[in-house]
Amino acid sequence: MSAIPATPAQPAEASPFRLFQAINAFHLTEAIRSSIELDIFTAIGAGQTTAEAMASHCGIAERGARILCDFLVVNGFLSKRGNQYSLSEDSAKFLDRKSPAYMGSCTEFLLTNDIRQNFRDLTNAVRHGGCQNTYAHAPESPVWVAFARSMAPIMVMASQGLAEIVLRNERRSMKVLDIAAGHGLFGIAVLRANPKAEVTAVDWKSVLEVAQENAKNFGVADHYNTLPGSIFEVNIGTGYDLILVPNFLHHFDEHKIEQLLKKLHHALKPGGKVATLEFVPEEDRVSPAVPAAFALIMLAETPAGDAYTRSELESMFNRAGFSRHEFHAMPPSPHSVLVSTRN
Amino acid sequence: MSAIPATPAQPAEASPFRLFQAINAFHLTEAIRSSIELDIFTAIGAGQTTAEAMASHCGIAERGARILCDFLVVNGFLSKRGNQYSLSEDSAKFLDRKSPAYMGSCTEFLLTNDIRQNFRDLTNAVRHGGCQNTYAHAPESPVWVAFARSMAPIMVMASQGLAEIVLRNERRSMKVLDIAAGHGLFGIAVLRANPKAEVTAVDWKSVLEVAQENAKNFGVADHYNTLPGSIFEVNIGTGYDLILVPNFLHHFDEHKIEQLLKKLHHALKPGGKVATLEFVPEEDRVSPAVPAAFALIMLAETPAGDAYTRSELESMFNRAGFSRHEFHAMPPSPHSVLVSTRN
Repeated sequence: MSAIPATPAQPAEASPFRLFQAINAFHLTEAIRSSIELDIFTAIGAGQTTAEAMASHCGIAERGARILCDFLVVNGFLSKRGNQYSLSEDSAKFLDRKSPAYMGSCTEFLLTNDIRQNFRDLTNAVRHGGCQNTYAHAPESPVWVAFARSMAPIMVMASQGLAEIVLRNERRSMKVLDIAAGHGLFGIAVLRANPKAEVTAVDWKSVLEVAQENAKNFGVADHYNTLPGSIFEVNIGTGYDLILVPNFLHHFDEHKIEQLLKKLHHALKPGGKVATLEFVPEEDRVSPAVPAAFALIMLAETPAGDAYTRSELESMFNRAGFSRHEFHAMPPSPHSVLVSTRN
Repeated sequence: MSAIPATPAQPAEASPFRLFQAINAFHLTEAIRSSIELDIFTAIGAGQTTAEAMASHCGIAERGARILCDFLVVNGFLSKRGNQYSLSEDSAKFLDRKSPAYMGSCTEFLLTNDIRQNFRDLTNAVRHGGCQNTYAHAPESPVWVAFARSMAPIMVMASQGLAEIVLRNERRSMKVLDIAAGHGLFGIAVLRANPKAEVTAVDWKSVLEVAQENAKNFGVADHYNTLPGSIFEVNIGTGYDLILVPNFLHHFDEHKIEQLLKKLHHALKPGGKVATLEFVPEEDRVSPAVPAAFALIMLAETPAGDAYTRSELESMFNRAGFSRHEFHAMPPSPHSVLVSTRN
């Protein structure tokens, strides 16, 4: 089952226990985090399928293992038959350390003390229309190193999808800029799909070290260049065929985004493209669930960021001089890609 | 929609975003808490149905109101049509201060710093098989005053259900003991259904003051007596027709529960009954969702408490000298009632 349903359904009758569950939603956060810390999923994947076996394997109490695992069953991350637990498809793929798609590290970014504190301060963010604690936007903020190190696995699918959409099997030489590259996966996916491309990644210096490690690991370091600094301030030059803007615009207000898009427009060759990967809700702003819910993270974490709709994104690009757009959904990823071309 | 689904369903294909949602589940906790703090639901109930109207009514930012309300729509606590928000059935009944069933106060118990901290320490609780911080079990712990004051509304339905089950329209005079009475609602519901009953409530002195206030408000104070202290230590006398044990046994291990049940067995008249209200999961311990998930709260919050199954409860009662039991589900409440009779 899905821990949080993807499609809304109306409840049968009023019940205080849906409210009870919603207020207690943080129990699921902590249960998943604990299970990752204790490596419960890897233990089950390795055949320690009873609470008793897990207890001796992981050095925990049998009672603790049993209650935690039952809770994970209730929330769809495990199945249970008799006293035997087994991994759900998601858990086997993403939470067993032996899986190549393991992403247990993502709690190290998603559950930092800063993020938790900003959500504790949500009432203030609602009052002021944004977060007053702008640690994430500070130059060389270490949060982006944590992001680059821990969130890469969750972006593999999206980075491959983006490369397919923007390249369409093209293999000509091209000059590519990857903005706020982070882990670097988006530029790296372009290089893997088109070995004739040349990528320049912009981000804080400490973050680019992570991206370079990844480029090396994927065997594309020869075509991977770095340009440290803030994209709003650094000289990026001109003549780009393609500029990647993955998961970046949502941190800023429309004015700041337009300012950036004008800079990118100027840096593109005629016919060059900006590929923007974003959580894009429908115009109603309440569907689909993941992109719509993402706006709350921006309210809690940034002074004025948002989950922008397609029409808002296109308007900002148009005001910056772009006029042609293609919009791509990327199911099953909740991301979308807007490809905007300079005339 | 239900914020957390009541019935499990298998996901269509592996997706990292279910994990992303589960790790981020605490966002829902904080969004509901903020909305209660800012009284958003009452504002919408009073006709402030746009983000703009809420902003000026509640003294918050329009952007904050819009993003928070959209998030509540995604999670089923509001509906949206155009830019107009409306309350879901649950929100109208339980989160609008003008509703007699308002229960926004429950965050004051469910989200105390102690409870949050115990869930932050969940990994340790799993390691040791229970919580090392036993603040909740300390004599005169102020947490139970907070419980009595803030959790009463969430128990109204269950207290009426319990009274119906144990009294079955009986109107004879009877001597009733209400154990760990808290807000007192369970004993009060018995008194309202049978004015010839005489209730003695046991709890910490400071908690009984809340129960007495409630008894007065419900017009049953004349038949409502209090006995301050720990039920494990206080002299309760004998000759009871009925002993209520609502939401209490789950805090303790089987040994301590048996010790208590022997005391209760001794205090009952022959033919007298103990009515135990509990979150009782099925024997698989993973369904239904609310009672099954409750075990994690006991792991995080108590040294050795649990959500006991029906057969475990009956065994403990049998070892304490009881032999006859009736078991009642109480839909739509997730509670169950076990009625055990002394021969």
